[in-house]
Amino acid sequence: MSDERSYSGFVIDGAQYAKWDRQTFQEMRDGGVDCVNVTIVYWETARDTLSEIGRWNRFFERHNDLIMPAQTGNDIRVAKELGKTAITFAFQHCSPIEEDIDLVEIMHTLGVRFMQLSYNNQSVCATGCYEEEDPGITRFGRQVIREMNRVGMVIDMSHSGERSTFHAIELSERPITITHANPKSWHPALRNKTDNLLTALAESGGMLGFSMYPFHMKGKSNCTIESFCEMIARTADLIGIEHIGIGSDLVQGHPNEVVEWMRNGRWSKETDFGEGTARDAGWPDPVSWFTSNQDFPKVTTGLRCHGFGEDEVDRIMGGNWLRFFDKHFGPA
Amino acid sequence: MSDERSYSGFVIDGAQYAKWDRQTFQEMRDGGVDCVNVTIVYWETARDTLSEIGRWNRFFERHNDLIMPAQTGNDIRVAKELGKTAITFAFQHCSPIEEDIDLVEIMHTLGVRFMQLSYNNQSVCATGCYEEEDPGITRFGRQVIREMNRVGMVIDMSHSGERSTFHAIELSERPITITHANPKSWHPALRNKTDNLLTALAESGGMLGFSMYPFHMKGKSNCTIESFCEMIARTADLIGIEHIGIGSDLVQGHPNEVVEWMRNGRWSKETDFGEGTARDAGWPDPVSWFTSNQDFPKVTTGLRCHGFGEDEVDRIMGGNWLRFFDKHFGPA
Repeated sequence: MSDERSYSGFVIDGAQYAKWDRQTFQEMRDGGVDCVNVTIVYWETARDTLSEIGRWNRFFERHNDLIMPAQTGNDIRVAKELGKTAITFAFQHCSPIEEDIDLVEIMHTLGVRFMQLSYNNQSVCATGCYEEEDPGITRFGRQVIREMNRVGMVIDMSHSGERSTFHAIELSERPITITHANPKSWHPALRNKTDNLLTALAESGGMLGFSMYPFHMKGKSNCTIESFCEMIARTADLIGIEHIGIGSDLVQGHPNEVVEWMRNGRWSKETDFGEGTARDAGWPDPVSWFTSNQDFPKVTTGLRCHGFGEDEVDRIMGGNWLRFFDKHFGPA
Repeated sequence: MSDERSYSGFVIDGAQYAKWDRQTFQEMRDGGVDCVNVTIVYWETARDTLSEIGRWNRFFERHNDLIMPAQTGNDIRVAKELGKTAITFAFQHCSPIEEDIDLVEIMHTLGVRFMQLSYNNQSVCATGCYEEEDPGITRFGRQVIREMNRVGMVIDMSHSGERSTFHAIELSERPITITHANPKSWHPALRNKTDNLLTALAESGGMLGFSMYPFHMKGKSNCTIESFCEMIARTADLIGIEHIGIGSDLVQGHPNEVVEWMRNGRWSKETDFGEGTARDAGWPDPVSWFTSNQDFPKVTTGLRCHGFGEDEVDRIMGGNWLRFFDKHFGPA
């Protein structure tokens, strides 16, 4: 591809997990969203994951007037021209590759473009952010990183421990991502990231997607869009405007059983409340200004009002992700 | 059961992995072996494991004049009376439970009595002995230990890291085992265990099975039975004669592809040589005095010649394992 590729006017969301249906897809169109990186699995096995991809293939067939699969950055440009939303697949955890290095390429062939190396707990690849100690990337994890680098599957450390994340940045030959989190310096949630880590991420060419999941935001469900945009401005100053995008972590339409699945998978006989508590076990209320894909224009407006220039807004809302996808989806 | 249960004259092996067939089973009978704890899987998934158990069920059906399944210590007494070898199932790794806590009870129901929490590498439960760092038992691992304690599946830390093993001893309400290893003080192999660890194991009521796998023995394939028996005597002095047994790690009839599977599973694209080296990649030659189940009488004789009394020989050759199985196979 030449330099003539467009990066302007794209809206790309680095992380969503909805009870997908025609209405959700219509809302993506209504909100002008060109690409959504959808979480397809958490704790699922390889076999479960094939079924989940199969379910998406049926979505693509039935709702092909609204959505289409994307395996490259250019597929997103095609989607935009056709007035559709491009969908990329992401794993929140490495369960689907089941200690089988060959499954990295197989999942990539099936369209998976992001994989987290761990989700809250210790995995066979890396440590999760809820473990007491973090020894870094494992023997298998090193091989998985190499293989993801080779085929062009992007490493995501959103739910990993800090040391494992630094270690992944060091070991990976290609930049890695934190698709959905915010700076700890803004809101000290366990899932948010230190300034040091975000700086290292950006220095290696990586990307941070800003989360609008209430547990990750200052004031939680009462967070204002002004506060959110101010945090974005501070982060841009810290790590550079080229390294940031949106990873809304938008959750929609799921009953509370689904947040229980996310937190407990099949691994726990007790209830693990994750970012919640026993008294506050369900989904958090969304912020008033971001409840569905229809609200993306409010974020764009918020950034403009905060004083970001048009080019900066373009970068944050999708241009940076698109550049990253162009480079890192597929072999180097 | 009353105190009248017999513990005398039993030969029990805590670990074997052969290319099982009628000849192997006949050799168990020839060697007077009353029970073999067989490794049925390493890196296999739950589904793979069901097939492996299915294969064993067919063995039990076809060779029911030689072998029978055992789920309790008493099943071993029944087998001895019938002139058969009792078979118990062991996992060398936790892959078969696939991050699913419910699979512990299900595998127990299917006859599995031992599970290692990790095999060389970091697992979702514990660290393997080949990782650079060992943070101890994971969040999931704590739940797995509790569940194994509840249903009566025995924890085996033969291939785990030292810190994870100490941690498992501390967390488990029931004694744990190292089914196949030797003291590092005798032969400083990575897989062998420190005196401190073996002492803690015994103090908590646990069991060590002595390995006759050449990589675990002083002089490797040239190790003498005298040296092996002297090591047993020193270990008995260190941790108590009640806490030791045999876990021969006898490997028989497998082509080199099988040792590659043990070491590499599906996790590695490079060849991991485990306890071997690139120049010495295959199975080690067995010691001359222990090449099949027919050689168990030589071990008994070796212990007697070293000066162990009849009761001591009885304990080491099977009585201690049988006492342990009586207590720890099934709910407390």
